[in-house]
Amino acid sequence: MQLSGNLLIGRQSVFGGNGTIHAVHASTGAAIEPAFGGATLDDLDRACALAWAAFDTYRETGPDVRARFLETIAQKIVDIGDDLIERCMAESGLPRTRLEGERGRTVGQLRMFADVVRDGDYIGARVDPAQPERKPLPRVDLRLRHIGLGPVAVFGASNFPLAFSVAGGDTASALAAGCPVIVKAHSAHPGTSELVGRAIQQAVVDCALPEGTFSLLFDSGRDVGQGLIKDHRIKAAGFTGSRGGGMALMQLAVARPEPIPVYAEMSSINPVLLFPHALKNRGETIAGAFVSSLVLGAGQFCTNPGLVFAVDGPELDAFIRAAAAAVENTAAQTMLTPGIRRAYENAVERTGAQEAVTTAARGLDPTAGHQGRSALFVTSAEAFRGNPALQEETFGASSLIVRVPTLDVMLELIESLEGQLTSALHIDEADYADARRMLPALERRTGRILVNGFGTGVEVGHAMVHGGPYPSTADGRSTSVGSLAIHRFLRPVSYQDLPEALLPDALKRDNPLGLNRRIDGKLRLAT
Amino acid sequence: MQLSGNLLIGRQSVFGGNGTIHAVHASTGAAIEPAFGGATLDDLDRACALAWAAFDTYRETGPDVRARFLETIAQKIVDIGDDLIERCMAESGLPRTRLEGERGRTVGQLRMFADVVRDGDYIGARVDPAQPERKPLPRVDLRLRHIGLGPVAVFGASNFPLAFSVAGGDTASALAAGCPVIVKAHSAHPGTSELVGRAIQQAVVDCALPEGTFSLLFDSGRDVGQGLIKDHRIKAAGFTGSRGGGMALMQLAVARPEPIPVYAEMSSINPVLLFPHALKNRGETIAGAFVSSLVLGAGQFCTNPGLVFAVDGPELDAFIRAAAAAVENTAAQTMLTPGIRRAYENAVERTGAQEAVTTAARGLDPTAGHQGRSALFVTSAEAFRGNPALQEETFGASSLIVRVPTLDVMLELIESLEGQLTSALHIDEADYADARRMLPALERRTGRILVNGFGTGVEVGHAMVHGGPYPSTADGRSTSVGSLAIHRFLRPVSYQDLPEALLPDALKRDNPLGLNRRIDGKLRLAT
Repeated sequence: MQLSGNLLIGRQSVFGGNGTIHAVHASTGAAIEPAFGGATLDDLDRACALAWAAFDTYRETGPDVRARFLETIAQKIVDIGDDLIERCMAESGLPRTRLEGERGRTVGQLRMFADVVRDGDYIGARVDPAQPERKPLPRVDLRLRHIGLGPVAVFGASNFPLAFSVAGGDTASALAAGCPVIVKAHSAHPGTSELVGRAIQQAVVDCALPEGTFSLLFDSGRDVGQGLIKDHRIKAAGFTGSRGGGMALMQLAVARPEPIPVYAEMSSINPVLLFPHALKNRGETIAGAFVSSLVLGAGQFCTNPGLVFAVDGPELDAFIRAAAAAVENTAAQTMLTPGIRRAYENAVERTGAQEAVTTAARGLDPTAGHQGRSALFVTSAEAFRGNPALQEETFGASSLIVRVPTLDVMLELIESLEGQLTSALHIDEADYADARRMLPALERRTGRILVNGFGTGVEVGHAMVHGGPYPSTADGRSTSVGSLAIHRFLRPVSYQDLPEALLPDALKRDNPLGLNRRIDGKLRLAT
Repeated sequence: MQLSGNLLIGRQSVFGGNGTIHAVHASTGAAIEPAFGGATLDDLDRACALAWAAFDTYRETGPDVRARFLETIAQKIVDIGDDLIERCMAESGLPRTRLEGERGRTVGQLRMFADVVRDGDYIGARVDPAQPERKPLPRVDLRLRHIGLGPVAVFGASNFPLAFSVAGGDTASALAAGCPVIVKAHSAHPGTSELVGRAIQQAVVDCALPEGTFSLLFDSGRDVGQGLIKDHRIKAAGFTGSRGGGMALMQLAVARPEPIPVYAEMSSINPVLLFPHALKNRGETIAGAFVSSLVLGAGQFCTNPGLVFAVDGPELDAFIRAAAAAVENTAAQTMLTPGIRRAYENAVERTGAQEAVTTAARGLDPTAGHQGRSALFVTSAEAFRGNPALQEETFGASSLIVRVPTLDVMLELIESLEGQLTSALHIDEADYADARRMLPALERRTGRILVNGFGTGVEVGHAMVHGGPYPSTADGRSTSVGSLAIHRFLRPVSYQDLPEALLPDALKRDNPLGLNRRIDGKLRLAT
């Protein structure tokens, strides 16, 4: 499939006139053709104008139309075939099996949101019928539904070129909510972005939707990304990336004349808590699973286990020995971009140079350029307590084990942690009472709590939370994975005494959409 | 009932050492005894520490305990009896019937949230059961519930000394969500605040809840209010008041190391749209209802109809004549505070002095001090279009009628409006098609759309939205009235592979709380 390097603005495909970007081979750093034209501010304006013009029509599409649109996108991504995987492998350095899995996840996500749209519960329809006889005052007729916030800006992520990029979770949930989407492609995978973007653009045409439902922009600098957040027609944004990047977007968003929500998924070190009985009975097994999770995808997951707490003693020594041995046998892996690899090695170097931090193991030497070596560090509770730098995320396969003297100190250190996406407890039944003591502190600062597992491997389902208190995300009331993610892009509207002829279908008296609705506060399933 | 002037910090009642405030008679401006001691920053710290200490216990109270707590507060407010009404009349200048009604609303609101807590749907429980046989990877067990955000700061409102103050909608919904509450009393009604605060304090004791579940602080300046927003243990805030006040809190909240949501309900002019057939057939009747809504409570409602759009012509002339005649016969009314009355008169004077604005009517002269005279202004579409000052809220009984040449221009002017709490359409059946054209623009910028009514009179129900896009509220994804308000103070937490012994009751396998739960994405009613 021939790549054009073009911006996709509504139904147009045009080469951007504001500089160019090239993808680079993750493994060599060599540029890959073609060039992609960066969007000008005029291009941005056009995309926003089209999105705005599309919004009223798109948000009122019926459940079948919108669900079929999401399913059509999914099918068209599948139809790209191996060209997508091969381009994505070159741009990201990620292996084929991983990307085939990620494609499945992306497509599955779109289909899940199609089901969510057909189900209709996300509309949150409520009816408080009129009570004309009520004393002292008659009660009005009130009906409530949720509608889309407006056009949404989505920023592609480096580490999920499919599942968190052009047609990823943010796009799927925003489109499901009835919001047009403008994607700012991640500059690390423009070719992948164009292929997926064209699939969406074609799905818009096939489903006879307004052209502004989707646009894809490339950014040769930062103007387009910043301009998107600042544009008055953009009403929310989704972002997955670094803390610095997310915070910059948050600041732009609150400085607007009309502030907007930014759902930025930023940084997390995902504490792992090893409890005494589990450590004693299964320490080596846990160590193996830990290192597998740590080095998965060169550690380039938001849910990578970057921190381990365990009570000091011979069992922990054995755990560290086993984990160190596993890390030492880990092959170096190509990282997503040369820049990410440089940042990773710098961060690892900084950690190793910290006071009272010892390097327990490094992975095998690189066999090619731009590969990252995994790293395992050990420190004490005192050193960890006094050094906020040890709480900073290292994006890559690096983790820090903290020897704590007692479980009380472990709890105290948990209470010193920032907000996290995940936390994992490794426990046997004899540990349950101690684990229970930690749960409140974990709930207050974590979006997902796991037992005897690791945070990598984020199931796309209905009960998933991939989000957490700041700074793991900008808005801890939300998730960016799973069906609950649709609620990020909705707001409630109430209708008082509207005649049937003017009510939206979701709220009409005979419930033509067959929705579950809350009647006078009680949930009633559609029959 | 003797007032102490004391702060209520947990179970303590202590006189604040940071200056004093006095209530004043709304009608005379004379101080009312006793003095209320302003909180010091130490008092604030103590209240926050107690709230933080209470949070884990309070948020895990079962539905019956928490519901009975809300009901106990309601009953204790009723039990204060007429002392509450009399003190509140003196402090607010509001008449007895209004305050008796507002007390009923406040108590009803608390009882409604007790029902919401017992119902349990707010928990949003979801279960995706494990699928150990799934290929290629087994599926984990995932369960999701919502928990309280943490301690909430509530700022009392001047215009609802009961329903939006110490035990008002923000407090009721935060307590229902499992969040301890610290109220910063409005300085206009400290006595009312103490009486209601003591009712809550006593309910905390009677229900054997942790003392930090509730505290009440007086602020002799701005330090306590600002300090509350900045305190790291406060995780959200509720505010009803001016745009300036709300924006100041928003700015403090985003500048924190950990930003928090501020639910500020700020300003709205609540456009009223008069459509041609309704205007022709019922113009004078609508004019009467309009003026009744306008002058209700001296116009001191967030939903006061401050703006009217109608197509120019003899029918509009007749409407204006009828409305002007009604306004001219309106008695001046005591406003909430001398300061609010001054601000109102200044704003009215500024509006009357605007280019191309004519004063259609003023109400009757004051018969006592600190009374506001209602005001009705008329202008043209051109003048309105070019003058953003005419979009500013005047807090009080003032409204501006805009003569528009056509419905197309009306739509254009709607599109120029900021976010609003309400918008009202006055229509006959022959107007439906024209009304339908306006609905998308109204939905995009309004929380509640009414037909043939006015926004004043905000029903406390399940389908109510009292909220809207910025700047009507800080966060247009929320409502501050009605049962949906509880969602402002919740966040989702996901539990992966937790043993039954560690799962919260809401997510246990046999559903001991009898919750409606979403199983694999499908809503299942408890049987």
